Amino acid sequence: MNKFLVCSSLPFAAASQPRIVQASLRVQEDGVVQEDGVVHVAGHCTKVPRNVNMDKLHNRYLFSEISRREVQHIEKYPNAKVMSLGIGDTTQPLPEIIASSMAKYAQALATPEGYRGYGPEQGNKALRKAIAEVFYQDVLVKETEVFVTDGSQCDISRLQLLLGSNVTVAVQDPSFPAYVDSSVIIGQADDFKGGARKHGNIKYMKCSPQNNFFPDLEYASRADIIFFCSPNNPTGHAATWKQLKKLVDFARDNGSIIIFDTAYASYVMDDCPRSIFEIPGAREVAIEVSSFSKFAGFTGVRLGWTVVPDELLFSNGFPVIKDFDRITCTCFNRASNIAQAGGLACLSSEGMKAAESLVHYYMDNAKILVETFTSLGLEVYGGANAPYVWVRFPGKKSWDVFSEILEKTDIITVPGSGFGPGGEEYIRFSAYGNRKCILEASKRMKSLLS
Amino acid sequence: MNKFLVCSSLPFAAASQPRIVQASLRVQEDGVVQEDGVVHVAGHCTKVPRNVNMDKLHNRYLFSEISRREVQHIEKYPNAKVMSLGIGDTTQPLPEIIASSMAKYAQALATPEGYRGYGPEQGNKALRKAIAEVFYQDVLVKETEVFVTDGSQCDISRLQLLLGSNVTVAVQDPSFPAYVDSSVIIGQADDFKGGARKHGNIKYMKCSPQNNFFPDLEYASRADIIFFCSPNNPTGHAATWKQLKKLVDFARDNGSIIIFDTAYASYVMDDCPRSIFEIPGAREVAIEVSSFSKFAGFTGVRLGWTVVPDELLFSNGFPVIKDFDRITCTCFNRASNIAQAGGLACLSSEGMKAAESLVHYYMDNAKILVETFTSLGLEVYGGANAPYVWVRFPGKKSWDVFSEILEKTDIITVPGSGFGPGGEEYIRFSAYGNRKCILEASKRMKSLLS
Repeated sequence: MNKFLVCSSLPFAAASQPRIVQASLRVQEDGVVQEDGVVHVAGHCTKVPRNVNMDKLHNRYLFSEISRREVQHIEKYPNAKVMSLGIGDTTQPLPEIIASSMAKYAQALATPEGYRGYGPEQGNKALRKAIAEVFYQDVLVKETEVFVTDGSQCDISRLQLLLGSNVTVAVQDPSFPAYVDSSVIIGQADDFKGGARKHGNIKYMKCSPQNNFFPDLEYASRADIIFFCSPNNPTGHAATWKQLKKLVDFARDNGSIIIFDTAYASYVMDDCPRSIFEIPGAREVAIEVSSFSKFAGFTGVRLGWTVVPDELLFSNGFPVIKDFDRITCTCFNRASNIAQAGGLACLSSEGMKAAESLVHYYMDNAKILVETFTSLGLEVYGGANAPYVWVRFPGKKSWDVFSEILEKTDIITVPGSGFGPGGEEYIRFSAYGNRKCILEASKRMKSLLS
Repeated sequence: MNKFLVCSSLPFAAASQPRIVQASLRVQEDGVVQEDGVVHVAGHCTKVPRNVNMDKLHNRYLFSEISRREVQHIEKYPNAKVMSLGIGDTTQPLPEIIASSMAKYAQALATPEGYRGYGPEQGNKALRKAIAEVFYQDVLVKETEVFVTDGSQCDISRLQLLLGSNVTVAVQDPSFPAYVDSSVIIGQADDFKGGARKHGNIKYMKCSPQNNFFPDLEYASRADIIFFCSPNNPTGHAATWKQLKKLVDFARDNGSIIIFDTAYASYVMDDCPRSIFEIPGAREVAIEVSSFSKFAGFTGVRLGWTVVPDELLFSNGFPVIKDFDRITCTCFNRASNIAQAGGLACLSSEGMKAAESLVHYYMDNAKILVETFTSLGLEVYGGANAPYVWVRFPGKKSWDVFSEILEKTDIITVPGSGFGPGGEEYIRFSAYGNRKCILEASKRMKSLLS
């Protein structure tokens, strides 16, 4: 893996001379200079070893790579009308009550009465209480078990800090790439094996149409930690009550902890559970991470939460919540108080109604995409309980399909293999976008594929 | 260290029975039940091992402990007029231009034109550019080297994720507790030794009046990473250009990386450097973390930044900035766009003027505190280039002094030993507060100590 010039053995004075880049050397797109398979960088070597875990990451973070390709495409075709069904970024304006609550809060910070500095690290009491009430009916979860944060993605890495390197991890395959990547970074995973396109020591639980997108737990081996996302990103599948009961029982039988990601819970349109804590016994085996991002358009505002139940204990009897609290106080600080004011407004009855209508707007987009691809005779999944439509292109590499769609229609998508080897042959289409865009994208896809 | 009931060897069915707490057992204040030195918790043991690093943390996070004692004091004396010179929380209203910019931005999120979702993970281009211009005159640092974040404390842990467990760390003693605690959490440190009150494998570089609060580098052994804070929290000492030159040379000679914390840079009133990058050669050995929190009253709003120069390389020649970018994209997400709008307004000439006047307000408070303690004949440090006043109480344990001050004057402070063994006998007084409070605190301290 490590092809970089080793200079730690050089005397530091020598190593600290600027390395002059010769014109004959090949300069890569990322500024790295290569000669005879050895990479040289203009700079000065310290004697600090690079973290071996970082070296195990085999490529860029998926969504950074997508952005990079988008930029390249625009450079190549400056007049292209590029349209994104890619990263899953909310596009519709915030509900008025949320925006005005944040605006009012921010403006009041200029007054002696309205100024606030540090609040509690775990989040403001009123917001924790509202989350427990609105999402957990004050029964499934206590307000003291809710930790308000700056979003699920950050929470996943904080949970990895909490768990450390000495645990084994299982993920759905395909799954949101931050699970595997953060596992690698914290040191739970072995090298990436190009053939299998998997990291050693991570258990990939395949989710495909063959098993109704739910892992074959009867054949699964034990892992300490099971990352599970429902409604799923990227497949769009929402696990049923029965499926989640199986998952909870599996975790209980194996003494595992489920990290349950419900960032898309508000998109559940049928009776699939919106929280793992709807399943009996889940409080003893699960942590839940969730977010205002996709629910209320907070992708840029940043607000989420994590629930750690009191009953969840490590093998030595120590409460997980106590370690998560320590991580929150030490490695985080607190969510922005302005974002928290927005979250509180969102959980009012007016805010909830407005947020739900945003969800329905995006779900109508999803319906258009599902109809588009179905009419083209493709295998189409998701889109019923999630803002993602998961389309199969049999026999094709998903990065090739991604490139072809981008080249011929100027539409950004996400290649399924970016979510794990189980995503090969698939493309994820995001339903985020204004209606006009989605209709235009549908037209372009039809003219490409019909 | 591990006194918790081990139940991983029990069959899970047995372990998952609720443990009934007997009335005869001693219930501690934190809900943990103790019997014969073994701690029992009402809950269910999984088979997931507790992270050994978390077990090495020997107590609560310092500022959580302070908050806990404040709450206890208020419960004991409900009518007490408690006053905080403790955690260092800004108290004065935000400058109007900052608050109104954030309010305007937040309100516009409700419109199709003003709505923004995900921005770049590294921060908005305009803000990165403004930071490079205002704080680094566009010479010391490039805008592409600036990563906008939700604050220094979070950045420190993200830098630890980047570095991993296989590096050695040195800290000033005393120092901001998140350096040592995050080192322990990531696995760089050995157990806490009660006698020395230090963690094994961390190098504590003593900073006291004897060495003008600058470590004796001529006797210091090498560490991969050197955490260094100037102006210093808690001692209030700003390192001179000459001192920082020594530090940079030491890092260059040893191939170390300095993580330079300049959260209090705006409080420098003389010609001490405000950035490590003012020192020649620093770009090849230093990362800088900084913040809008104390500079512009953003403790609750949350905004900071980290600079990683292009030239800084690991021993194998790999650029540190590339790994930090990967961490930013994978383990963070991005700072709140509303907070970023506030940061940009702060860096306008009107914003800077207003922020500087806030700094002067707090520095006038510091002067009052310095005069108070000097007039009482105490040894007083800091307060000239920092909002912290560091006062020695010879022969006394700082937690005892903390408790005595709280009990007799209702003033919250921070005991020096919370920042490391080198802080013993000291108390840190924060100059954050409105003038009336500071004057009242001065009066109370005079009546206690004179």
